[in-house]
Amino acid sequence: MLRLRNSLTRRIGSFFSDQGFTSANTPILTGNDAEGAGEAFRIAPMDLSHPAAVAAASSSSSPSPASQESTSEFFSRPAYLTVSHQLHLEALATALSRVYTLSPCFRAEPSLTRRHLAEFWMLEAEWAFTNSMSGGRDVREVCKFVEAMIRGVAGPLVASGSVDPDVASLWKKADDPDGGKLASLQTSFAQPDWWATMTYTEAVRELQAAVENKAVDFEYEVKWGKGLQSEHEKWLAETLVKGPVFVTDYPKDLKPFYMRVNEGDPRTVACFDLLVPHLGELVGGSVREERVEVLHESMKKAGLVPPEGEDVGEEANAYKWYEDLRKYGGAPHAGFGMGFERLVAWVGGVENVRECVPMPRWAGRLLL
Amino acid sequence: MLRLRNSLTRRIGSFFSDQGFTSANTPILTGNDAEGAGEAFRIAPMDLSHPAAVAAASSSSSPSPASQESTSEFFSRPAYLTVSHQLHLEALATALSRVYTLSPCFRAEPSLTRRHLAEFWMLEAEWAFTNSMSGGRDVREVCKFVEAMIRGVAGPLVASGSVDPDVASLWKKADDPDGGKLASLQTSFAQPDWWATMTYTEAVRELQAAVENKAVDFEYEVKWGKGLQSEHEKWLAETLVKGPVFVTDYPKDLKPFYMRVNEGDPRTVACFDLLVPHLGELVGGSVREERVEVLHESMKKAGLVPPEGEDVGEEANAYKWYEDLRKYGGAPHAGFGMGFERLVAWVGGVENVRECVPMPRWAGRLLL
Repeated sequence: MLRLRNSLTRRIGSFFSDQGFTSANTPILTGNDAEGAGEAFRIAPMDLSHPAAVAAASSSSSPSPASQESTSEFFSRPAYLTVSHQLHLEALATALSRVYTLSPCFRAEPSLTRRHLAEFWMLEAEWAFTNSMSGGRDVREVCKFVEAMIRGVAGPLVASGSVDPDVASLWKKADDPDGGKLASLQTSFAQPDWWATMTYTEAVRELQAAVENKAVDFEYEVKWGKGLQSEHEKWLAETLVKGPVFVTDYPKDLKPFYMRVNEGDPRTVACFDLLVPHLGELVGGSVREERVEVLHESMKKAGLVPPEGEDVGEEANAYKWYEDLRKYGGAPHAGFGMGFERLVAWVGGVENVRECVPMPRWAGRLLL
Repeated sequence: MLRLRNSLTRRIGSFFSDQGFTSANTPILTGNDAEGAGEAFRIAPMDLSHPAAVAAASSSSSPSPASQESTSEFFSRPAYLTVSHQLHLEALATALSRVYTLSPCFRAEPSLTRRHLAEFWMLEAEWAFTNSMSGGRDVREVCKFVEAMIRGVAGPLVASGSVDPDVASLWKKADDPDGGKLASLQTSFAQPDWWATMTYTEAVRELQAAVENKAVDFEYEVKWGKGLQSEHEKWLAETLVKGPVFVTDYPKDLKPFYMRVNEGDPRTVACFDLLVPHLGELVGGSVREERVEVLHESMKKAGLVPPEGEDVGEEANAYKWYEDLRKYGGAPHAGFGMGFERLVAWVGGVENVRECVPMPRWAGRLLL
């Protein structure tokens, strides 16, 4: 598993370098609770007697009345562990056009599933579009890039007839008696055509039709406007498509504020999730909202914009810089994020992401 | 600067891969306050009403009386941001022989110098020795490996006559009117001989002689058993050696518990610091103590071993696993750590490490 991680890391580096991307080290410590979902770990304020707390207080440039209370913060304001490098990566993309990072992310998610870790590595990339964007075609371009990346990075490691020895030894241990999962993986990479793509609306229609025809029975209701549950994703990839499938153009209300609102249908955004058999969601990405007025509306709706005309200070206005990126010379761009442990799990036939990283951390669990 | 980081990262990957090293993703969140220096950032306990806090509490496997109070910890015990990946890397080295990582580290250092950041990237490597170790020669072997690595990674980027364009543009901005620093850097890499090596004891003797001869005047006293100050390091590299210099075999009391005690002189340990002109300490490393009794004594002295015969629980005994690595099949090994921003500063002629990473964080400072 360690050697597979190493191969994938090296191959990711080569792929992005060949495509003209620069690798970037975006910060782990941030003032933003990124997606605003309350999943960020907070850095503990310091005991006032700690030497670092004293130094931090004296170096703080903020002479506001609030500084009396915040002196115990090392950074003179609350700090969090990043849940995603996306926003910072977008800032660097304005300078470098094409950037990616493979970095640790942290989420205080209570879920104890085989797909979640409190500390995990994420591959994230952002790049400016140079080709024309119109008629909702652009999100397909992003899907194509992601597919080319995954095929380039992982394809040769699982190629039928020449499986990489490290991958082969993992599959020997995998709970896959008839070799069906490995074969399905190999088929995914051997397909000469592009992987299937369907919109969220089409996916919902397919799921509803299957329920009506009594072809399948789901625990959760399928309804336009509701999120797809794991059981739905599984059915789409494993039963309907029998391979990886990009589901695009989800309802705006289900997705974060930074995704581009579709011009043809403002109820949806130009985004995708890549669903793969036996794992579920592997990648999520979108075209980013570059129109500052539309972004401002979305941020307002998400509660990230302070009330008009009020000076709330830097801390309460932690997303202003993100909005400003569009004001002062942005460019149409897109990006995606892929949980690295999920890729390892899929390629190595490992059931649980906890086995895909040395010394895993999840709720209640922190060894060594 | 971003492109220089990218080149160095890529070249580090190639160098270690060629040398048979596996890259590893060691954890950021840890139960250890690693070097025990009180510099670790602590993760804030969670509000008990937070859903993740409740889930963490119910999943906690510890039925001890203390669990009532610790329910607010997401990991059911206090968690810190790692200050170094070394201990975890050593554990992986027992499985993989040669491992390295280029990962973020965190130190709540109050110092506001041009050489320190609260969040920085560190290159760390650990490998088992296969050659014979005797007579204190082994730390020289480690120095030679480190030098070969730095020459391989950075040498071609600054080679006289063919300076890499990204490096050249940084040097154009550098405060180096006569080009002396760049020339000194190029000389360091062009030397056909190995870089100078001297023991701490020899270095102290040279420093003391220089003071006696009134060749130099230091603010801090030079005395065997005391640490070398920045002014002393500067004089050794810039005035005495006029190039990079490895200073080895420091007094045991100045260094952390895991360094190997020298057989010939138990007051010293088999370690080194690499000092380079215009920057100071670039790399620190050592042979690791593999003799479990000697290690136990050093850990006891550092206050990392709980009182004999007392069952203090997992939390108070956070280093036991490290000691156990030696008990249950360890191997003689060595390693080093290099601040990545310092390498960028040296190679790019950048004065302040804060300019060597996008969105830097230091005491009192956390933007975006």
